[in-house]
Amino acid sequence: MKFPTFLPLLAGALLATAPLATTAAAVSPPPAAAPAKATGATRIDPTFWWVGMKNPKLQLLVHSPGIAESKLTLAAYPGVTLEGTQKLESSNYLVVNLTISSQTKPGKLKLSFDGGKTKLKYDYELRARSTDPARVQGLTQADFIYMLMPDRFSNGDPKNDVVQGMRARTVSRDTMYARHGGDIRGIQNHFAYFKQLGATAIWPTPLVENDMLRASYHGYAVTDGYKIDPRYGTNEEYTQFVRAAHQQDLKVVQDIVLNHWGSYHYLFLDKPGADWFHAFPTFTRSNYNAYALNDPYGSKRDYQLFNDGWFDTTMPDVNQSNPLVATYLIQNFLWWVESTGLDGYRIDTFPYSDPQFLMAWGKAMQEEYPKLALFGEAWEGTEAEQAFFAQNILPPVNGFKSNLPGLLDFQISFAIQDALKTENGDLSKLYHALQGDWLYVDATRNVPFLDNHDMSRFYSVIGEDFNKFKTGIAWLLTLRGTPQLYYGTEVLMKNFANPDGKVREDFPGGWPGDKVNYFTSRPGLAGEAFDYVSKLATYRKTHPVLSSGKLMQFIPQDGVYTYFRYNDQGECVMIMANNTKEEKTVDGSRFAERLGGFRTGTEVVSGAVLPNLASFRVPAHTAWVVELKK
Amino acid sequence: MKFPTFLPLLAGALLATAPLATTAAAVSPPPAAAPAKATGATRIDPTFWWVGMKNPKLQLLVHSPGIAESKLTLAAYPGVTLEGTQKLESSNYLVVNLTISSQTKPGKLKLSFDGGKTKLKYDYELRARSTDPARVQGLTQADFIYMLMPDRFSNGDPKNDVVQGMRARTVSRDTMYARHGGDIRGIQNHFAYFKQLGATAIWPTPLVENDMLRASYHGYAVTDGYKIDPRYGTNEEYTQFVRAAHQQDLKVVQDIVLNHWGSYHYLFLDKPGADWFHAFPTFTRSNYNAYALNDPYGSKRDYQLFNDGWFDTTMPDVNQSNPLVATYLIQNFLWWVESTGLDGYRIDTFPYSDPQFLMAWGKAMQEEYPKLALFGEAWEGTEAEQAFFAQNILPPVNGFKSNLPGLLDFQISFAIQDALKTENGDLSKLYHALQGDWLYVDATRNVPFLDNHDMSRFYSVIGEDFNKFKTGIAWLLTLRGTPQLYYGTEVLMKNFANPDGKVREDFPGGWPGDKVNYFTSRPGLAGEAFDYVSKLATYRKTHPVLSSGKLMQFIPQDGVYTYFRYNDQGECVMIMANNTKEEKTVDGSRFAERLGGFRTGTEVVSGAVLPNLASFRVPAHTAWVVELKK
Repeated sequence: MKFPTFLPLLAGALLATAPLATTAAAVSPPPAAAPAKATGATRIDPTFWWVGMKNPKLQLLVHSPGIAESKLTLAAYPGVTLEGTQKLESSNYLVVNLTISSQTKPGKLKLSFDGGKTKLKYDYELRARSTDPARVQGLTQADFIYMLMPDRFSNGDPKNDVVQGMRARTVSRDTMYARHGGDIRGIQNHFAYFKQLGATAIWPTPLVENDMLRASYHGYAVTDGYKIDPRYGTNEEYTQFVRAAHQQDLKVVQDIVLNHWGSYHYLFLDKPGADWFHAFPTFTRSNYNAYALNDPYGSKRDYQLFNDGWFDTTMPDVNQSNPLVATYLIQNFLWWVESTGLDGYRIDTFPYSDPQFLMAWGKAMQEEYPKLALFGEAWEGTEAEQAFFAQNILPPVNGFKSNLPGLLDFQISFAIQDALKTENGDLSKLYHALQGDWLYVDATRNVPFLDNHDMSRFYSVIGEDFNKFKTGIAWLLTLRGTPQLYYGTEVLMKNFANPDGKVREDFPGGWPGDKVNYFTSRPGLAGEAFDYVSKLATYRKTHPVLSSGKLMQFIPQDGVYTYFRYNDQGECVMIMANNTKEEKTVDGSRFAERLGGFRTGTEVVSGAVLPNLASFRVPAHTAWVVELKK
Repeated sequence: MKFPTFLPLLAGALLATAPLATTAAAVSPPPAAAPAKATGATRIDPTFWWVGMKNPKLQLLVHSPGIAESKLTLAAYPGVTLEGTQKLESSNYLVVNLTISSQTKPGKLKLSFDGGKTKLKYDYELRARSTDPARVQGLTQADFIYMLMPDRFSNGDPKNDVVQGMRARTVSRDTMYARHGGDIRGIQNHFAYFKQLGATAIWPTPLVENDMLRASYHGYAVTDGYKIDPRYGTNEEYTQFVRAAHQQDLKVVQDIVLNHWGSYHYLFLDKPGADWFHAFPTFTRSNYNAYALNDPYGSKRDYQLFNDGWFDTTMPDVNQSNPLVATYLIQNFLWWVESTGLDGYRIDTFPYSDPQFLMAWGKAMQEEYPKLALFGEAWEGTEAEQAFFAQNILPPVNGFKSNLPGLLDFQISFAIQDALKTENGDLSKLYHALQGDWLYVDATRNVPFLDNHDMSRFYSVIGEDFNKFKTGIAWLLTLRGTPQLYYGTEVLMKNFANPDGKVREDFPGGWPGDKVNYFTSRPGLAGEAFDYVSKLATYRKTHPVLSSGKLMQFIPQDGVYTYFRYNDQGECVMIMANNTKEEKTVDGSRFAERLGGFRTGTEVVSGAVLPNLASFRVPAHTAWVVELKK
């Protein structure tokens, strides 16, 4: 999530109908607005669990009015031990600690709560783990991620557009912050499109319930961490979606938020304890300044404001330094992996969570699912500050040493935009963004991208210059890491993120009756753009040297930037981009380390042949991806 | 030394009279130009040595025509062992390895070279080490360095302006790249001025011999590493200068170059071996890109070009990976410390030397002189890349782990200039420059500065705005580290470094008959500027909390940047700068961590009283340095 432009704008949108809350207390809706279902219902999280997990511990959060007064009895179940219960500040909650030994069989635990006002019998399900080998594949550099906003991509099931009982009761495609009706079925309907494009993985922005009054479509104000938003589908449909994707050789990345929930989350409406959330005497925003975490001269106040301040008025900051909260979040995200078989997590606002919690959470995910892909959003201004949030070569700083394998590579994104947004743009930032990898343990786990849902669209940033577009795509698909494309970039969707709703427009053709349908027909430049991405992505898929090969870059000179992907099997691809408005002649001898042994080359998209490698004449604003031949 | 603007300009200046050399061979002057004294003379480096050095090894480089044919005999000398001799590629050199045990007495070693064409008897002096406790004091944060160009500061001895036998035979104050006549005596004549300003240390650009044809005044093209340039004075005068400075409580920093020598250096005119210098088939410049050293994707070629390419046509790149060269340079700089008692080295073009050599050189200096100050010039674009060249918290990268305690802090300089050069300039860079200290072992060893001899003058950069000038000085003198001021900045000397000669103009009053004499009279703003620096530097000197106190900074907000220097004794100074053109009201409660316990404050330069600390009204473009009172 982005703070600088997103927030004032979203705040502005809210102000149109409701005054901004000014105190933490006021952020909670008044009691009248709190529906009975949220505070009165009985539920246990995790909603079910499995036998045979590596970690035998399971902590249940039981929610039911007055439940804390009751005494729990667990009917004998071989392998399962009741370690104890714990009361919280609110009598509507009881924590139950269980141990499930490795020999335990699937079945139902019979829980009886007696002795208080609440009498409750609950059959808690312990399932068998799936053995499907297609589950939890993770991501490699060979993947290519297609990121989309499910509400804005395609409406595959008009029946779930408006769901009774939810706070937002309308669907309105001509209102920027309303829901538009896209859903899981809409994504699944277009698996063929992703494959045609050459994408191998799908990253929808969060699909879990966001039962908020307004702007719920973006998905980052979670109100139930165990439930797919009914406007997108059901938990079962989502699980089936992941399975279907795997059957089509597509992977699924789930977008998650650790830092905050929506203010209509049931655990905020009826708090287990005040210490489950960060609160200030008056409403207090984050300072959005992660530098405070590792500033040797930083104040406690700036540190705390960054970590504990709220991301927005509607997004209470979760206190993960509370061990119960930490466990709740860890189990929540083990649960999604185990219940769906998803391949990776994209972690929103990664730096904003408690640093110690982040380490524990990452450890728990990786211990249970070593192949699970994990990459975070750390929207920072420098290579070093970004690297601070991934596995890096540095010792712990202020007790924090990230164990997150990868990050969304904002430095690459900034650098490509900087290179292309002006005439004769600066290439050194891109060179430096890659050089900055010296601080990482393995920067190939990063995810480069050109734009996303919080940024102005790439094609607009580069002045709608199609040659520059191709250069950006050529870099994106040949740099190290797992590239990500934002939906619509492949068909030249435009707009500046001001307001951000403008970069979240509906994909043309995603709704029945759309006049323009880019799924079926892409006339003109949109088609050329799609084909360029598709051809290069397909080449990339069939030529692993381009994704997993070693990388060697040369200092940009005279407006030309050149790097190579190569391997020990003698394959080599040269990427040479002239970022000026004049043709450039480049002396090949400078690249002897990589050109040695090769005699000619073929540009892999156009098929043009380079008859010799001694010298290159690169046309203005042109990127070549050249397969070298002996 | 600066490359980007300096080089083309210097090259241009050279081109006015001589075509640029295009091959390495052509860079050597033609034989006719090589004076007999350079190649024919007998000399031994180090020119003398001491008994009682921690390292008992001494390696002599004996230079005399045909000396390699001779056999060396060492007359018996208790404690001294002749370990052997070594011939080099040139028969004009012989290397002599000695061990000098700790019990050895001072005296003269009698060396006899016989058996070849050359018969030579040489009394090599072993001196007693000085026990003067004022020697080699090092620098602390309490110091304040005044940097000057000796040729341009003051002409104290007109008799040495033109020295017979040297290649440049004129002195011409109206010619930018000619010598102007300044000298050591001129510096020494103005000790009182430095003290009045509040400076505690003097850093002249290199004083050693630069017997070059042109532009020798800058000092970075060394032709004899053991000799003060006669136009500045003698070795004895320099030694006496250091002693006199110490007597006045002034320290001396020597500016040295490890990376290259001038093309008229005697060891280049008559090379001991081809492997004493880096050479290419044709003249090859450095790519000036230190990022190649730690680029995980860097090419060997870019790495080598950076390290081994020449800094300029007149500056052969010394091959420090040759152990003989490394020893030569290490002994050279132990020699200057021991023979003069100087307090620190400023190391020019630090990243350009062989990385392994830099580690060995730094280790040798620090082992022999633990108090010696060492700071290098690493003109890099990012905090992380700069920190790579100092002692940092990182593991070795490509085998390099810097042991250099400090660096000239270019990030601070860039950041202050960025903050002040436009209206409502960006303060975040300064905040980030300090935050970047997290990568250092001890960033208080860095040397912040506003400008230097390679950069546009500070007062010009900030649009000759006197309020901004005071803000820059206030930051400079209150940040961590040992601040450095470039001569003339204190009296508002102006100009942009285009060409760089314009920022190297004579200090007004430094020459007899100068119409303006800023040493004696500083009317108008020049005087106000001097007084501001002087008052703040004097306060700093008498209030150690401002130099050695802890630092706490707060994220800049609303155009105001605030930080504190404080200690455990309850002292605290608040630095608050409004960098906008409007008065700002700042809520003091944000700084409760530091303001707690204090009730009022006094701005230390103006004497203005802040009657309460709950809220501050800071005028436009104003920096306060406020001593807090209980």
